[in-house]
Formats: sequence, C-alpha cells, structure tokens
Amino acid sequence: MREGFIDVYRGEYVESKHRVHIAVVDFEGNELCQVGDIEQFVFGRSSMKPIQALSLIESGAADTYQFSEADISLACASHNGEAQHTERVHEILDRLHLTTDDLRCGTHAPRWDEAYRKIILEHREITQEYNNCSGKHSGMLATTLQMKADTNDYYKIEHPVQQHVLQIVSDMTETPTEEIRLGVDGCGLPVHAVPLKNLALAFAKLAQPKLLPEARQEAIHRVTNSMMHEPAMVGGTDRFCTDFMRVMDGAMFGKAGAEGVYCVGVKERGIGIALKVEDGNGRATSTGTLEVLKQLELISDEQLQQLDQYVHTEILNGRKEVVGKLVPRFQLECANIK
Amino acid sequence: MREGFIDVYRGEYVESKHRVHIAVVDFEGNELCQVGDIEQFVFGRSSMKPIQALSLIESGAADTYQFSEADISLACASHNGEAQHTERVHEILDRLHLTTDDLRCGTHAPRWDEAYRKIILEHREITQEYNNCSGKHSGMLATTLQMKADTNDYYKIEHPVQQHVLQIVSDMTETPTEEIRLGVDGCGLPVHAVPLKNLALAFAKLAQPKLLPEARQEAIHRVTNSMMHEPAMVGGTDRFCTDFMRVMDGAMFGKAGAEGVYCVGVKERGIGIALKVEDGNGRATSTGTLEVLKQLELISDEQLQQLDQYVHTEILNGRKEVVGKLVPRFQLECANIK
Repeated sequence: MREGFIDVYRGEYVESKHRVHIAVVDFEGNELCQVGDIEQFVFGRSSMKPIQALSLIESGAADTYQFSEADISLACASHNGEAQHTERVHEILDRLHLTTDDLRCGTHAPRWDEAYRKIILEHREITQEYNNCSGKHSGMLATTLQMKADTNDYYKIEHPVQQHVLQIVSDMTETPTEEIRLGVDGCGLPVHAVPLKNLALAFAKLAQPKLLPEARQEAIHRVTNSMMHEPAMVGGTDRFCTDFMRVMDGAMFGKAGAEGVYCVGVKERGIGIALKVEDGNGRATSTGTLEVLKQLELISDEQLQQLDQYVHTEILNGRKEVVGKLVPRFQLECANIK
Repeated sequence: MREGFIDVYRGEYVESKHRVHIAVVDFEGNELCQVGDIEQFVFGRSSMKPIQALSLIESGAADTYQFSEADISLACASHNGEAQHTERVHEILDRLHLTTDDLRCGTHAPRWDEAYRKIILEHREITQEYNNCSGKHSGMLATTLQMKADTNDYYKIEHPVQQHVLQIVSDMTETPTEEIRLGVDGCGLPVHAVPLKNLALAFAKLAQPKLLPEARQEAIHRVTNSMMHEPAMVGGTDRFCTDFMRVMDGAMFGKAGAEGVYCVGVKERGIGIALKVEDGNGRATSTGTLEVLKQLELISDEQLQQLDQYVHTEILNGRKEVVGKLVPRFQLECANIK
C-alpha cells in the first residue's frame, strides 16, 4: 500500500501533515488508481448528496413540486447560507406549503459571514434555512409529501424517504444495505459509510450511467447537469465545489463531504474519484483533488491556474501575509489505465 | 516507535483518526515516556508563550510597566477576545502610552462570539486587541520600550526583543539558536520549531527550575504562578487551558499551540509534557493531554469528572444531539519512571 500525504508548510518547514486515501474507479468497476487504503469504510457525508438526490427525482417529487435545476443543485448542496441559497429554500418550502420550522436540520451560524452579520444586525435568531444542508432537507420534505409520509420524522432511518435513499446508496455503491454502516450527520440525517472504492464507483456511475436502468440514467443526468449548470447553488462564493465546476465547464462535477471527503465524477472517461483525508480536515481536499486530476492528466495548466487559490490553499496570518501552504506528496499507483 | 492515535467516532464507527506524538521529560532531561516520534521538530506556536514571556520579566519591562499577574497571564494567552481580555490590553497599552494601532498582530474575528456580535451591532471594525495574541504583543511592546528599541518593527526576527526571545527559547529548550527552525506565526511574530522532546524539556524546567540561575528561576515562578492564579486570562470562558488550570489548582499549568500542540508543566514532579497532533487539528489536544495525565496517574477521577467536556470532546449535530466523540488509543511507552 502506497502512502500519501498532503504536507502543511510553515515557511520552508513541514508543520503538519495529512494522510490521504484515494480511489479512482471507472463506471464498469475497474479500480484504476489508488493511494492508501481504498477498502476502508468511509462516511461519505455530504459528498453523497448527489447520490441521495436521486430519490428526489425518482420518487416523482421533483416533477410534482417543480424543482428547477437550481433547486435540484441546492438539494445536493453544502451551501454558504448566502441570500441566493436561503431565498431559494423559502421558495421551495412555499411550494410545499411548509415553512422553515418543518426542517429538521437544526441550526449553525451561516458559513457566509455577511449573512451572519445581517442576522445579528436585524436582531434575528439563526434559523434552519441557514444550515448548509437546508436544500437537501427541503428536497427530502418534497419526497416525503410525494410519498404521503409523515413530515415530522423524515430524518429517521426507518422513514420511507430514508429507506428509499438507503436503497439507492446501496445500488449506486454496490454495497448491500446490511453492510452499509450508519451514523447521524451534522444535520441529523442518516449518513452512510461504504468502502472508499465503492464511493468512487458510485461517482463513476454518476459520471457515466449507461449501464444502469433508463429511469436511473435520466435521474442521474438531471442531478449532475443541475450541479454543473447551477454550481453556485452547490456551495457559493469562494467555495471549491462551485469554482471547480465553473472552471471544468461541464466536464466533471465534484462534491465535498465533511471530515475531509471529496468526490469527483469525470463525464467523458466515466471515472469516479473519492478522496478521504484520514484526520478529517477539509483544508486538504482541494489540494489533493487537483493533484489527482493533474496526475491523471484530466486538468489543464490553464484550468489549474484559474483554480490557483485551491491548489496550495495558502495560509495567511492576521496581517494577510502568506506564511504557509499545502503541498501534495503522493503518487497515484495505477493499473488498468486505458 | 509506538504509534498513537485519537480516534474520532461517529456513532459506533471510527470516522477519522489523529496521529499523536507525545514526549514526557523531567527537569533533568530524562526522557520518561513517549508515543510516536519525539525527535521531530515541532513549531510550538502559542504553547511557547510562557517561555517567550520570560523576556518580559527578565528585561525588567514587567516591573517598569507594573504588570500584574493578570497582565503577565494575558501575555501568555491565546485569548477569546472577551471584554476581560480586550479591556486589559487597553489598560496595558495606556500605561505604555501606546494604542492598539501600535500592535502588529493583525486582526481576526474574536473567538468569543458575543464579542463579535457586539462589534457588529456597534458597527465597528474588528481591531487588533481582539486578536488572540494581543496580550503577548502588548508584552513585547513593553519589552521594546524597556530596551529603548523601535516599536514599529518589534515583530521582525532581527529586532532586539525577538533576539532576546530567541536566546531564551534556545536556553530553555537546550537547542542551539542556529538549529532552531523559524517560521512566521498567525500573528506575524517569529515562531520556533525544536524537537518535541526539547519542548517537553522546556516545560519541565518551567515546572521545576531549581537547576537554573536564580534570576531565571524568579522569572519562571512569576510567569507560571501568573498563569495558574489568573487562568481566565490565558484562554477564557469554555477554554481548555483555563478550565484545566482551574481544576488542577496550582499543581500544573498548560498551554495550547495552534496546529495541534499542547504542553503541560507538572510542578511537584518537575515533569514536562509536549503533545503534537500530526495533522494539526486542535480538537484532539485536550483528549490526548488528559489521557497522558491519566496514564501517568497525575490526575484524579474527580478532576477528570470536572473536565468531562474535554475528555471525549463530544461531537454535536445541528439539533445539539451527541453524534460522535473522540477516544484516545495510545499507551505511553515509559522508561526511567521513578
């Protein structure tokens, strides 16, 4: 097993280092490249939202409740809580005749500081639409209504929506439901752990679904096109997911997950990439992901240039001077590369 | 080399893991216990503030500018930016006939959210006294005046204050100045990297300085007593450093450093402990430190009970439910334990 690291430099010395595990798999299930342990079970966290959003489409809820591409993209999001996100959550909930009180994601301060400042200046409490997962929760509420199920406990694993999601995760990751490990996410929903290579496989199938049933193919195209056409919904201003999909311009889609997960689907090659930072630190994910794409020759120098702020993720001090940076230190071990 | 980890559980499964390196050394330089690589150079970051504060005392600045124990404790702090901290920074600077504009630490949002909210509601800019290092910078400004040096560039490595600090760090860590590795800290000051075991040694000497020159002994007692008598200044509300020193009640002192560093000095035994989380994540430091003290039988069950929130550092979701926790998984490898 070849080990991989992303080193954190302070000046000319390594101050900290992140171990990374990386799987590159194609849509037929061929394991193309790896770093570290790709058999280990990994909670995909929010990186699995595009997989879970298939439930929104396949249940018919997206049609019944007129989900636009921006709405579907928001259902796959870990958003900043900017006005563009929270206003859209309100619009979706209005169509469901529900309110933000019906969300069960709980609250945290919005990632977008401007939104937080506005809440404070208006003497408001932080409400649930600012939770980065509120788009996914809104989508699940739509699916709940579509299934005529109870909107009060849509977050519980035994709820029909979560059972539907579990089955789809099982299908897409080719992991039997009884082998999938379950936990509770930061937003209260079930999270699924599968082997890292199976997470990569699911993204490969999202990228190239042609071996799947037709309805699944259609749902997949709708989800991944939504993300790529409306990347601002997936994250927001100054977010890697958003800027990455803008620059890659329809060639690939990517989604971050908490605790250092990042997944990419490469459309043309039908390849899925799944990366886990062993210690869970998300600061290393963009550096690692872009290095993988560079080694696979799937990203151009010009594209890397446009994503410059994410390549080395420079560390600034309080005076805004660069005092450190992240540097990848791994070489993909590849077989079967066609 | 025995490896050590702190596992991050989500529900019943390990989601992420932090590798830790730990050195336990006594004041005579005996290496008592270890986990991982204790020869590696580690930037002590803010954990070195109590060592660096010796410059404030030994230069005579603390006497000239009437530094109280609370002021000295604040000079060793990575504080929350609560009113108790920022008001004291203003008082110190007033005595120096300087203002917060003379600080060179730069700005970041105060860790204490209430302070941040107040700044926003009062339509103020974030100013430098809110920087967690503003106490140390105020102390260095006092030392600068005492040395009749230039207050504009006290942050530069060639400045007399930084040269004095470098010499003290070299003495205390028993690392020649030319071997100390230098970087720039988040607050713009030079930071020093020394082998992890030498950082532990410095804390052992802070805990039991009887082999050192008398003036150094006096300075050390003044710094460590200040921290233990005024622990609220070192961190603040809900901070491990503060609560740890309160509970240990004069038996030991501790200080966190950025990028996953924690150091403790155990007074009675004259022992120093230095811990580095390899990946730099500070969330694992209290769990690791308390586990070390437990294995060394230096902390009682009752004390651990009082520090319960720091033992497993539970992970909450947006609905404030416990969804995970940190669990130490290492055994100190000990020799020479008397």
